[in-house]
Amino acid sequence: MPPEKIITLTTDFGYEDGYVGVVKGVILKICPQARTVDLSHEIQPWNISAASWILANSFNYFPEGTVHVAVVDPGVGTRRRFLLIEAGGYYFIGPDNGIFSGVLSLVSGDIRAFELTQTDYWLPEMSTSFHARDVFAPVAAHFVAGVAPENFGREIAKESLSYLPAREPKLKQDRLEGSVVYVDRFGNLITNIKRDMVKTASLCQVGKRSIGRIGQTYGSAEQGAPVAFVGSHGFLEIAVSQGRANEKLDAGVNTPVILFQRDPAVVKAE
Amino acid sequence: MPPEKIITLTTDFGYEDGYVGVVKGVILKICPQARTVDLSHEIQPWNISAASWILANSFNYFPEGTVHVAVVDPGVGTRRRFLLIEAGGYYFIGPDNGIFSGVLSLVSGDIRAFELTQTDYWLPEMSTSFHARDVFAPVAAHFVAGVAPENFGREIAKESLSYLPAREPKLKQDRLEGSVVYVDRFGNLITNIKRDMVKTASLCQVGKRSIGRIGQTYGSAEQGAPVAFVGSHGFLEIAVSQGRANEKLDAGVNTPVILFQRDPAVVKAE
Amino acid sequence: MPPEKIITLTTDFGYEDGYVGVVKGVILKICPQARTVDLSHEIQPWNISAASWILANSFNYFPEGTVHVAVVDPGVGTRRRFLLIEAGGYYFIGPDNGIFSGVLSLVSGDIRAFELTQTDYWLPEMSTSFHARDVFAPVAAHFVAGVAPENFGREIAKESLSYLPAREPKLKQDRLEGSVVYVDRFGNLITNIKRDMVKTASLCQVGKRSIGRIGQTYGSAEQGAPVAFVGSHGFLEIAVSQGRANEKLDAGVNTPVILFQRDPAVVKAE
Repeated sequence: MPPEKIITLTTDFGYEDGYVGVVKGVILKICPQARTVDLSHEIQPWNISAASWILANSFNYFPEGTVHVAVVDPGVGTRRRFLLIEAGGYYFIGPDNGIFSGVLSLVSGDIRAFELTQTDYWLPEMSTSFHARDVFAPVAAHFVAGVAPENFGREIAKESLSYLPAREPKLKQDRLEGSVVYVDRFGNLITNIKRDMVKTASLCQVGKRSIGRIGQTYGSAEQGAPVAFVGSHGFLEIAVSQGRANEKLDAGVNTPVILFQRDPAVVKAE
Repeated sequence: MPPEKIITLTTDFGYEDGYVGVVKGVILKICPQARTVDLSHEIQPWNISAASWILANSFNYFPEGTVHVAVVDPGVGTRRRFLLIEAGGYYFIGPDNGIFSGVLSLVSGDIRAFELTQTDYWLPEMSTSFHARDVFAPVAAHFVAGVAPENFGREIAKESLSYLPAREPKLKQDRLEGSVVYVDRFGNLITNIKRDMVKTASLCQVGKRSIGRIGQTYGSAEQGAPVAFVGSHGFLEIAVSQGRANEKLDAGVNTPVILFQRDPAVVKAE
Repeated sequence: MPPEKIITLTTDFGYEDGYVGVVKGVILKICPQARTVDLSHEIQPWNISAASWILANSFNYFPEGTVHVAVVDPGVGTRRRFLLIEAGGYYFIGPDNGIFSGVLSLVSGDIRAFELTQTDYWLPEMSTSFHARDVFAPVAAHFVAGVAPENFGREIAKESLSYLPAREPKLKQDRLEGSVVYVDRFGNLITNIKRDMVKTASLCQVGKRSIGRIGQTYGSAEQGAPVAFVGSHGFLEIAVSQGRANEKLDAGVNTPVILFQRDPAVVKAE
């Protein structure tokens, strides 16, 4: 039983329609001691990949045993499984559509997955389009209230879970070819190039534009100039001091980001 | 006394100015055990009707005894009453401007209404433009802290409360004429046609465009195609799978939605 | 030790990226009894002045002892101090960049300030770009958990703190020259002219446009017409009933707002 009864919520529901409030109401009605924390509800509608990325970069800042409910679900109402996953000391509840890919790729150790089928723990009336309210919220609430995972449905093989396509950088002779995987509110471009892949002597190129050598932080560059540095998520990030890197560099998710281990001009000349 | 001390907040205050935070501060200062839940603060400014609709579709997902504070109030500072209403096992606090119409139309059983006049339970300094902070929040906090409804002011007749104009669908010879009453973040068009008015054989028309027969859910249609189905609120809803129905169909609040019990072409030919 | 363990958060992080959720996770991991309240996370990126204004107009609506964490920090990663300030019965945690100017200008009585240097109370891994997560959140959590201010670093002189330039109205012979200091979600123009500077007989001019005499509230004017009145923050405010004053009057932050003690035409004619 998760000791702190903390349930985080990650959705694309937005804040205007009351959907998130209703989810919290359902949780509190079942388990008044539960405490909900919003991770994000402003994920671009149906962007499973963004939800997966946010969750992977956030889940382990919470107390161990926290239950993370994540629902970005373009396939709502069609056949896909409902999941409760135990991984890395945390719990994850949501649809089996790849939303937990990011987390699962990070966690070492045992992973247990359960398919939610026991309707006794769902709301009595089930809609075809709001499973966060009807299935995931009540299951999360019953779970933090003390119901064991096995009671929600049978255990399933972790190999059977849905994954999004992996987006790993490729190491070539003289370069590392990564890409932008997330653009945040500030327009910062966050890549899939991990801290330990970055050599400070490297030259960075975003799309077709050279950024120069890896810096330390926003303050490394003049206002308005782009800078590449290892960001707070532990990945190479391209930012513009007090500006928007995505606009300045005309870049977005999937834009190639290349690290040259030596100056490409020098390489060419040799 | 509401046992769980849960207070929900529904406003058009938005999230940028700190207004919602201040309301919560006022509540916590009076009753530190109170727990607030945001239902929505992104209601379109002054749209009482949207607030009423959200509240009506959300209030009873919360634990019984929950206090719902709702403040969308274009008439702030002019003469209209302040209310505390007990209805259907829940409590409602806000201005007497029709914002509770939706809830009151749904609740059966006793309804008690009180006019808030006892200034001892308000903030000492009263502004003319922020009654959520100065009146409604402190009253809600004192109420969950244990003050009886009678102490806030005299009981008034429920017939004297303000209501928004009713928007019920009309049944004609061969058709049911409803309309869109709410458009959500996803662009879904939610109508006033209830689940039990919908016959699955019906043909649905939005504005001047035919949608075809009633489906089951988003997944009933191909991506980009509109589909009509009974949505999570229990009303007929028109959506576009991974698209925006309001844009695709050039529709919004008050757009007519007609259900033909038989194919209109057939009707015409007969 | 702050008795209610309430921590408010004021940032420009927005709601989409999960940054705010992570800050709350860090707090709950260190002090599960802490309770966080969002003051605003939609402050315009890097707008320290807006954050200072919101904080100054909100902090004392919370229970005494509340800890206010405020992080709008264009200089993150460069050299500026981290602060814990005790003022007016409240606590403030954030960067030393002027974000607490508004609060400090209002508080009378003792002010104590500490420079956060004791890294034992920070997250073990320190990024260069997310100090809210790595420094301010953990310090706030340890503080409400009972760690004394002195343990986080040495006390520093309050005179050494950073302040934003003061924006006080100027009193001239026949007029008071103020300006707009904040524009809220509704487009209301909030000025730096305090309640006790306003004489009800005054004529108000915004930019080059005369608004007429000071009214009582939104309802004082016809729909669509501008009205000047003492708003809920205690400052002269210009609004348009059910409209946006900033657009109607083509005004924004720093637009001059002038109060004439007598009709300027009369003054001129004399």
